[in-house]
Order: sequence, then C-alpha cells, then structure tokens
Amino acid sequence: MRVLIIGAAGMLGAKLAAALVARGIGGRPVTALTLADVVAPRAPAGFVGALRTLAVDLAAPGTAAALVERRPEVIFHLAAIVSGEAEADFDKGYAINLDASRALFDAIRAQGPGYCPRLVFTSSTAVFGTPFPAVIGDEFHAAPRSSYGTQKAMTELLLNDYSRRGFLDGVALRLPTICIRPGAPNRAASGFFSNILREPLAGRPAILPVRDSLRHWFASPRAAVGFLERAAAMDTGPLQVDRALNMPGLSATVAEEIEALRRVAGQTAVDLIRVEPDPAIAAIVETWPQRFDTARAHALGFRAEADFDQIIAVHLSDEADARGRPA
Amino acid sequence: MRVLIIGAAGMLGAKLAAALVARGIGGRPVTALTLADVVAPRAPAGFVGALRTLAVDLAAPGTAAALVERRPEVIFHLAAIVSGEAEADFDKGYAINLDASRALFDAIRAQGPGYCPRLVFTSSTAVFGTPFPAVIGDEFHAAPRSSYGTQKAMTELLLNDYSRRGFLDGVALRLPTICIRPGAPNRAASGFFSNILREPLAGRPAILPVRDSLRHWFASPRAAVGFLERAAAMDTGPLQVDRALNMPGLSATVAEEIEALRRVAGQTAVDLIRVEPDPAIAAIVETWPQRFDTARAHALGFRAEADFDQIIAVHLSDEADARGRPA
Repeated sequence: MRVLIIGAAGMLGAKLAAALVARGIGGRPVTALTLADVVAPRAPAGFVGALRTLAVDLAAPGTAAALVERRPEVIFHLAAIVSGEAEADFDKGYAINLDASRALFDAIRAQGPGYCPRLVFTSSTAVFGTPFPAVIGDEFHAAPRSSYGTQKAMTELLLNDYSRRGFLDGVALRLPTICIRPGAPNRAASGFFSNILREPLAGRPAILPVRDSLRHWFASPRAAVGFLERAAAMDTGPLQVDRALNMPGLSATVAEEIEALRRVAGQTAVDLIRVEPDPAIAAIVETWPQRFDTARAHALGFRAEADFDQIIAVHLSDEADARGRPA
Repeated sequence: MRVLIIGAAGMLGAKLAAALVARGIGGRPVTALTLADVVAPRAPAGFVGALRTLAVDLAAPGTAAALVERRPEVIFHLAAIVSGEAEADFDKGYAINLDASRALFDAIRAQGPGYCPRLVFTSSTAVFGTPFPAVIGDEFHAAPRSSYGTQKAMTELLLNDYSRRGFLDGVALRLPTICIRPGAPNRAASGFFSNILREPLAGRPAILPVRDSLRHWFASPRAAVGFLERAAAMDTGPLQVDRALNMPGLSATVAEEIEALRRVAGQTAVDLIRVEPDPAIAAIVETWPQRFDTARAHALGFRAEADFDQIIAVHLSDEADARGRPA
C-alpha cells in the first residue's frame, strides 16, 4: 500500500509510522511511505519500501497537490496548529487547520474520478463546548468554545461532504486527551495530566495545577495509534454521511490517576507531585468534556484502556527509556 | 439605524425590507438602508431615509468590503445558492454559501475593533440529516446530507467563532420551510407544500407528488420576517457561544394542510389538487426533519403559527392578490 502521513514529525505521527512499518494496514504491507511535516520527519526503523520524508509548508499553494500526486491509497492527516496557538493567532489557525485541510481535499478531488483514497483525519473533543450533559452521546452537537475546535468541526463537515460526493473516503476521529504523553513536559493546558505520572515514574517532580476531583477523558498513545490503524482498515459503509466518531476512552479523575501511580510506584512517587493551583489552567480544563458514551465507535471495534493502571503499564512498556533517567 | 440586507431581491428580503421601513428595529427607525443582491433589489415603498440598491457579485474580491465600509449597525445575510443548485454545482455552492459568507465576516473584522455589528444569518434545517429522533432538540448534531446543509453548518460555526472573538454579534436562524410561499410555482423539491394551497386558493390546479401522511416543519413568510426582526433586536447575551437557533414552526402533515384548505375554501378547492406521485421528490423530502422542540428559541421570544388555518389566513391577508386571478 502507498501511504501518506501529514504531520508525521509529531509524537503520534512517528508512532503511527512505526506501527504501519511493523504491521501494514489491514494485513497488507506498506510498500511506499511519504512522511510530511513542517520539519522533515525521521525515517522509521526497519522500513524497506520506498520512503520520502518531506519538510513542507501546508499553507503554501501547490503543497497539497504535490503530496497527493503519487496517489497514496491511505492518507493520515494529523497536522494541526494546536489549540493555544490557534487561539493566539487567529489567521494562522484558520490557514492551517481549515484552509490547508480543504486544499488537501481539493487536491484529492482534482486527481479525478479514478481516485478515492481513505483519508483518516484527527479531530478532537474540542469540537464540543459547555454546557454538556453528564455523558456526551454520539448525537450531541458541536458547539466549540475555541477557534481550534471550530476549525476541527468545520473540517469534519467538509470531510463528510467530500466523502458523500465520492471524492474521498474519510474518517474523522475525535481523540481523547492522550496520556501518558512521552517526552519533556510541555506548556499545553492539558500537559499536567501526563506530567503528574510520567515525571514521578522517572523520579522527577511534577506540578498539579487543578483540583484532584477533576474528571477528564483519556487514551494512551498506543490506543490512539490503534484508532488510526483501525480507521485506515475499516469498512466505512456503516458510517453513512457522518464520518466523525467520538473515540472511546477512559473517564477518570486526577485522584484516580494518582491512586494508580501509588499502586505502581508507591508513595515516594506520589510525593513528587506538588499542588500549585493555577486558575488560568483550571478555567480552561473545567470546560472540557468528562465522559462519553461511544456506542458508535465501540460497535465499529474501536477500543481504549479500562483504567489508569493499564495506561501506566502501556507507558512503561512503550517508553522503556522513561524510567531511570537522571532527575 | 444603518441597515444592510444581502439577498434583498428574494421573497424574504423584500418582505423584510418593507417591515423594517414600517417598524424599524427594536423601536428605532431605519435611517439608511442598503439592499444588495445579484440583481438590483426594488426600493421598498415609503422609505424616506438614505437608500442604496446594489447589484453585486458576492463572490468577487472587494464586494464584501464595499458592502460594510459604511458600517451598517445591523446586517441581514440572506443570500444563498439554493439547495438543488448547490448540489448540482459543487464549486459555486461553496463559493457563495461558504466563502462569500466568510469574506463578509472578514470584511467586518477588517473594519477594526470599534465595529461589531449585529449580523443575522439565515441558516436552514438542512444542517440536520437522517437518522433523526422523532423530535429534534436544541442539542442535536448537524450531520447534513447535502452540500447546501454542509455550507450552512460551516458558516454557523464561523459565525459562532467570530462572535465569540468579538468581531461581530451574530445570530443564525435555522428557518422552517416557508409556507405559503407567494408567487408562481417553482421547481424546488419543497415547492408542492405551498403549491397545493396557494394555487387552489386562487382557483388553479396543483400537483401533489408525495403521500399525504408526510409530516414536515413550516412557518409563514410573516413569521419568518418576525424571526429576522427579533434576531436583529434581541439581547444576544443568553446565546453564549452557540448562536444558531432552531426556529419555531408548525409540525403538520400534507393531509392537515389539505383539511385546512377544505375549511377555508371548500371541497371545490381541494378537488383542484391532483395526486401525481414523484419518486424523485419523495426520496428527497422523506429525509427532511418533521418536528422540533425549539425550547431555546421559544424562551427567547420567537413564535410561529399554531396551525395551517393561521398559515392560510396570513397568506390571504398578506397576499391580497393571490385570490381571484384568472386560472
């Protein structure tokens, strides 16, 4: 299979590329792989097919056409300006998160009627805004409270219409917050959810900026890669016109995260978490979804972790170097 | 008040202009009125303020900037490529229904922080697609089955985000099917809902292409103008980020339409309806919404008719020339 990953330099893109090299898609090996991002993605280990790694400006005219001219059969579109930056830079957010996605879809359409690739698009639970019901179902409306969520919701609508028209065969995945995110702590408002596990597991301190009764919606990086693989291989017929799926996840509180950490790494690890309330971060995360009923995705075979013990075990297994580094 | 109506040459735009000239907005008279459309709109009778009637190409660069340069305090954006044409001409539908709306919003934003007009946008129940619940509530998701519905849903999302950012003060109204639509029968799939009343009331035959048990969602032209006036004058604070409102209407079957016709104009009028099943029209209208719970709009003071007798009475009152014309 010929595969294109846009946004391949990110954490999820790199893990996805490794998984596709190892397992193929739906049992078929990947023979040609194009990895594109604003910086050239690293080549995945062990790939023996045709590889291209491209540093591209997605907003530049001609980029989308160049990316699809070899007619990849499966396209993963993971590239995005993240929530905070899309809020800070209105025009840049729309240019990348909406216009570049539309340019990609139009470039596919311009290839003509013989070409209808599977297109897997990473959307977000940020398409939903308060007020929420206690459990968000599959027919709850998108009323985002951010430009990022707006751009994701608009792109989902485009993806549905282009799919209905037969220009492409799209699936949009509204991913839970990915936890435990590997690597260094970052400044995203959601960063602490990972920091308070990853850092103590490695013997380092972490800051908790919110109340520990806060509930949110999580899946591991491994589960997220599994969602992408499933979306690439699934039968899209049952989706009909609505190609956007709320992905399964784990609804858990910060306190439940901490209890799982205590079970795995003891009180010594928990003592590395320092509570420093940050009203700015609290104000953001208090408006985030807490729980979904993902019946539709479940019926289609998507699965996530059942508790935080599993999420920690996945992290320790997949990021073998996360432990034991000097503090 | 300085008012701009885009799409002023249409049936609703002309009735709205007449209402604004007669009643002002929220008790304040209209002092300057710009009427724009692809053909120059007719001047409303009795207007003594500053009037401009403009024939413009909304998709042309610079049109939006020219329309807002005099900083109208209230803008009604009614212009659209209708559903059938947006389905037949993919690019034209997106150019007018999405891109021209976005260009309008951006032209408003480009006027700078001192300018934040009320913008009333006519959306549509076409943002909803089957499968529906029996009654569609205010939090049901937009999953359109047409490019027209997609473009309306995307523009609603933009309107919400531009409102949240303070660039404009938007309200999007998802209008019911307007009935009885005055004038000559048209080829819209929804045309028969009006034809089977308007034509027999005027002594002329009409064709019914669907089963008479079909249920749909209606409001009169007078009610629709009332929605627009209310949206222009209302306090938008309670809307928060979700500026799109399902408008109230009457849920009624074709048989109920016909019974009301019988009560008003007798069996002679009903006998002018000829049943000619049209599977193509039936296939379209069977996917349309049948009933809404419009609690949110109701709480905000929006009102429609309670039965088809009222809708017929409004028609006979507002379109005095609809009766007695030669067949």
